[in-house]
Amino acid sequence: MPVSLYDVSIPVLTLNLNNLSAILDKAALYEAAKKLDPKVVPQTRLIADMLPLSAQIQIACDTAKGAAARLAGVDAPKHEDTESTLAELKARVAKTLDFVKTIKPEQLQGAETREIVLQFPQTTLKFNGINYLTNFVLPNFFFHMTMAYALLRKNGVDLGKRDFLGPIQ
Amino acid sequence: MPVSLYDVSIPVLTLNLNNLSAILDKAALYEAAKKLDPKVVPQTRLIADMLPLSAQIQIACDTAKGAAARLAGVDAPKHEDTESTLAELKARVAKTLDFVKTIKPEQLQGAETREIVLQFPQTTLKFNGINYLTNFVLPNFFFHMTMAYALLRKNGVDLGKRDFLGPIQ
Repeated sequence: MPVSLYDVSIPVLTLNLNNLSAILDKAALYEAAKKLDPKVVPQTRLIADMLPLSAQIQIACDTAKGAAARLAGVDAPKHEDTESTLAELKARVAKTLDFVKTIKPEQLQGAETREIVLQFPQTTLKFNGINYLTNFVLPNFFFHMTMAYALLRKNGVDLGKRDFLGPIQ
Repeated sequence: MPVSLYDVSIPVLTLNLNNLSAILDKAALYEAAKKLDPKVVPQTRLIADMLPLSAQIQIACDTAKGAAARLAGVDAPKHEDTESTLAELKARVAKTLDFVKTIKPEQLQGAETREIVLQFPQTTLKFNGINYLTNFVLPNFFFHMTMAYALLRKNGVDLGKRDFLGPIQ
């Protein structure tokens, strides 16, 4: 059984976006139990000069969306970063999932050698499909997924590693 | 160019363990500048009922070591969890890297379909090689990598995303 780039990309993104959605459900229970203003939890930060929860989730979503689009060679839908409540962030995850799940295995055939160029204000990064996935997408995606978990866990949301890994069996 | 399981596993682990080592160098600079007792930083936690930095690093290392061994079908070296200083934790990362780097691409041929069984006190997890990598190894490895980063970043160590991603070009 050969390994396809699809096997190690799209299902990973969908599993973990679903996990993130379930984590946000637990955050909503916490928010309700504590009777918090719905703007508070999304603005929580680990330290003042790091991004808040809302941005961690937006970036995790955009990393997944960008990966699915670039590896499949299709355009990604535009999602504005306007979310300020947990419900809105959950909807952002859902619309990201809706797009990622449209990508079919055959769309990633040959993507391992496709040149992928990322333009940033300060730099340009060039990858082939494999290196884009392994060196950019997965580390960034899991970084922001874990930061979102860390922010909620630190605030007292009832989370454990099983929530992060999700239904892996 | 077909994708091999090696391409999406061993180089990812070595790149990120090297990044972790460099992050620990920055932590050591911070510790020295603040004249901290060398036992303090390794014991830092995000919240009382989460594992400290030392354990985050030990688990990241063991996840990488276990993945390399199981996917190659070889025994992993035993590493006791005795580290209590940043220098010792850096040495733990180094000996993990020493082992992971011994694994050659040909040792992972066919590993995608190998049955991998993980025994835990409460449960048994069974995977094929691909699902073990994508659903267990990578999420766990990056989770503990990011927690280590988060703990140091929150304490004031001079870190940014570039330190986490490392030399990706």
